[in-house]
Amino acid sequence: MFIRNAWYIAAWANEVNDKPLARRILNEPIVLFRGKDGKAAALIDRCCHRAAPLSLGKVTDVGLECGYHGLTFDCAGQCVAVPGQDKIPQKARVRSYPLVEKDEFLWIWMGDPEKADMATIIDYPFHNDYKKWPHKHGLYHVKCSYMLLVDNLMDLTHIGYIHGKTIGGNPMTHVKADMVTTPTEHGLKFTRWMPDSVPPPSYLKAVPFEGNVDRWQEFEFIAPTSILQWSGAIDTGKGARDNRDQPGFSLRLYHGLTPETETSTFYFWSTANGYQQEDPLATELLYQEIGKAFLEDKEVVEDQQARINELGEDGLVDIVSDRARIHMRRTVDRMLAEESRN
Amino acid sequence: MFIRNAWYIAAWANEVNDKPLARRILNEPIVLFRGKDGKAAALIDRCCHRAAPLSLGKVTDVGLECGYHGLTFDCAGQCVAVPGQDKIPQKARVRSYPLVEKDEFLWIWMGDPEKADMATIIDYPFHNDYKKWPHKHGLYHVKCSYMLLVDNLMDLTHIGYIHGKTIGGNPMTHVKADMVTTPTEHGLKFTRWMPDSVPPPSYLKAVPFEGNVDRWQEFEFIAPTSILQWSGAIDTGKGARDNRDQPGFSLRLYHGLTPETETSTFYFWSTANGYQQEDPLATELLYQEIGKAFLEDKEVVEDQQARINELGEDGLVDIVSDRARIHMRRTVDRMLAEESRN
Amino acid sequence: MFIRNAWYIAAWANEVNDKPLARRILNEPIVLFRGKDGKAAALIDRCCHRAAPLSLGKVTDVGLECGYHGLTFDCAGQCVAVPGQDKIPQKARVRSYPLVEKDEFLWIWMGDPEKADMATIIDYPFHNDYKKWPHKHGLYHVKCSYMLLVDNLMDLTHIGYIHGKTIGGNPMTHVKADMVTTPTEHGLKFTRWMPDSVPPPSYLKAVPFEGNVDRWQEFEFIAPTSILQWSGAIDTGKGARDNRDQPGFSLRLYHGLTPETETSTFYFWSTANGYQQEDPLATELLYQEIGKAFLEDKEVVEDQQARINELGEDGLVDIVSDRARIHMRRTVDRMLAEESRN
Repeated sequence: MFIRNAWYIAAWANEVNDKPLARRILNEPIVLFRGKDGKAAALIDRCCHRAAPLSLGKVTDVGLECGYHGLTFDCAGQCVAVPGQDKIPQKARVRSYPLVEKDEFLWIWMGDPEKADMATIIDYPFHNDYKKWPHKHGLYHVKCSYMLLVDNLMDLTHIGYIHGKTIGGNPMTHVKADMVTTPTEHGLKFTRWMPDSVPPPSYLKAVPFEGNVDRWQEFEFIAPTSILQWSGAIDTGKGARDNRDQPGFSLRLYHGLTPETETSTFYFWSTANGYQQEDPLATELLYQEIGKAFLEDKEVVEDQQARINELGEDGLVDIVSDRARIHMRRTVDRMLAEESRN
Repeated sequence: MFIRNAWYIAAWANEVNDKPLARRILNEPIVLFRGKDGKAAALIDRCCHRAAPLSLGKVTDVGLECGYHGLTFDCAGQCVAVPGQDKIPQKARVRSYPLVEKDEFLWIWMGDPEKADMATIIDYPFHNDYKKWPHKHGLYHVKCSYMLLVDNLMDLTHIGYIHGKTIGGNPMTHVKADMVTTPTEHGLKFTRWMPDSVPPPSYLKAVPFEGNVDRWQEFEFIAPTSILQWSGAIDTGKGARDNRDQPGFSLRLYHGLTPETETSTFYFWSTANGYQQEDPLATELLYQEIGKAFLEDKEVVEDQQARINELGEDGLVDIVSDRARIHMRRTVDRMLAEESRN
Repeated sequence: MFIRNAWYIAAWANEVNDKPLARRILNEPIVLFRGKDGKAAALIDRCCHRAAPLSLGKVTDVGLECGYHGLTFDCAGQCVAVPGQDKIPQKARVRSYPLVEKDEFLWIWMGDPEKADMATIIDYPFHNDYKKWPHKHGLYHVKCSYMLLVDNLMDLTHIGYIHGKTIGGNPMTHVKADMVTTPTEHGLKFTRWMPDSVPPPSYLKAVPFEGNVDRWQEFEFIAPTSILQWSGAIDTGKGARDNRDQPGFSLRLYHGLTPETETSTFYFWSTANGYQQEDPLATELLYQEIGKAFLEDKEVVEDQQARINELGEDGLVDIVSDRARIHMRRTVDRMLAEESRN
């Protein structure tokens, strides 16, 4: 079951051009493309004539032309040309989806188009700020429910166990982090501090810390599928908790988790370099390291999904570190319940 | 649902020899082989002893010997030998299927054997005429219902869209072709003329036309699964419509579409060279070009099948160019309805 | 349907060490590992916290630590550590399975633990006797029900048909073997003699017989999944039937067939060299030859399973050589019926 009345990331804006792109979202086959005017559009990826995927077609001056018999559709899904006849059958149209380009994302609305309010799309100004937050983005296809990836990000005690070679470090440091959680209108925020801790391998590759650091993780979950992260570290003894605007390590991550099916997810992620902005190599290195860490997550959550597929979730036991995760799940369940009532 | 009381192409005659060949037809596992006398036979591909596939066995002087414990079956499916015992159990037999070798095809009858009338097998004399119609044949496995492949051949406006690099050319030439359709006892015929048109790439490879051509396509659909094609082109201005017996380009194609399963098909096809009969290279080139064009079809219809599997065919809209296709579908539906009544 | 109250081979003892091993048995995901004390244990391969496979974790001083959030379980499945909290939730435990190491096997009990009686585990002293029975072992994954592999070993007339290149030879030799079958408490035994027969290729590779041999096969089926085999050959004319303690060829095989799923099996097999004990190359050669022969079986039984999956077993006809097989099947059916009554 999916929340339908919500904005989902359909693609990175630069993935979509005049060559149609097929992508399954909330288990519907979608075709994304840009018209000759550069505006991006999303249609159901099935021609209304003989069901051929429109993504096999091409963009013409008047719209997206089916590659089988040449019917053409505009960005609203209206058929505007049928080869061999002047009259367009009245029913010749395909479903279109609201699609908005913002902050390097293409956001799609899978629910009732009347309810699609652009004002509710998340702001992520860092994607427009290449000077202060130079960044790169990636996309992973993960064979698990998007919920398991959100779960993963709501219980950071996993970092010491899964990410020992990258962003992890001593498991106990993460287990004992000082954590403050705050509910928000659309989810929750939490901040975690690991004072006087050993910097993990990825941090050391970025900055040659000589001793321990005060390390922080700020996470905001915005239902149903976005997590905004700001993390970093400053030499212990510099008063990081009172002032994070000091030399050290700092990054911003966007985690956007778009369901492909009930058990597979597109993981849109970006890494922004907040510590050595003038150095493109630092931006690249950060991207590589985080990309590696996310592959470590991918392996575990895919195996977790396989077990859940087989044995379900009955009998699972919550522990103390699940607190934020449970809050997140309740938020999502509430949205689902609300949508099914309407 | 399949039409069972009909002849289907089981194999090219030269595919079958004394090494058994496993092939699924109408979703039944069949083994094809030739006895020592050279006669081809078809049995269900399951030994009646322990269910091993008979296609793992070998042909002996008395029949097809199971490769597991040596039971042997004659061409009628009767068990004729059980190692270790003289008495053959009465129930020891496997289903056999009427099989007829004709015009380089092996035709199988999947329905009630009593109704199998050899006289109703299609004549295709061109396969026996290597002098006037030198030819080659191919076999493609296509992951779609055979109906989608028949559909494909009943609406030739697709040629301009799919086959631009081979037999296509300007889409509008095909859309505007002058078409005459005639119902027949077992399907329909149609003839299409594209006068004064640009010859497509494959035609130009075959014949160095210097200007436009008058191009024709003659198709006959014989239910449920055969399409016989004669196509060609002659320099514009030579009066092709009144006399096609002039130098130019001409080919005959057999399209035989045998269901493997509800959503996969064996596409038996042959290409006969009617324009440069004395040149084996011309025959080979024609075969290569048409083989390429059919792979272009294969890609589209497989994707079309995937969409239909998921979203069904509800809400699809017919257009003018569907006329022959709709007639063909009605013929097939009538046969299915008739068979289910009996 | 599986017999649950029985010992199954879970692994070769040397497969399991302090790196956890995932293996599906009777369609349950199991993790096998050795604690720091060297004792092997078996748990369900699902953490009771978030369902991650425990096989992704690692062995610590106190047990098996989950690789996701660090919960740790002892050999009995009791959770002994939850990072970040002192109190272990009462329900935090996972299922454990009785596991016994004996004769180079790890035997697992998949049923009611109260009924697990170590005294009923099969004795196979040859695995502990490297002097008289030097041996090697293998493991094949076979995509068929374990019953088809037991079937295979209960009707040895297949040897001439399947194993012509290895242990086979003239099919009629096997069909006409002199066979005596004896029911036992837990299955059956049979002995087959093929006097004055041509030694098959694998035998000739092992021993340069100059003429015919008297060849024997002694098989014991111990329900539900073990077959113990002693086979060999001695020059004809030496009175082999009265005295097999003469120079010639002799081997012991263990066939242990553990269901992975209803239609896949782990085939644990060992080959013991009883004819040239002082020569490691002879032991190796024997292992290679038998390994080849079992791959010949694997091919046939997998295809047999595919047919049975599709067409079932209705209408199959028993023949004379099925006698031992039928006895075996009745034994297994009786055990299943008995277990379902309790």
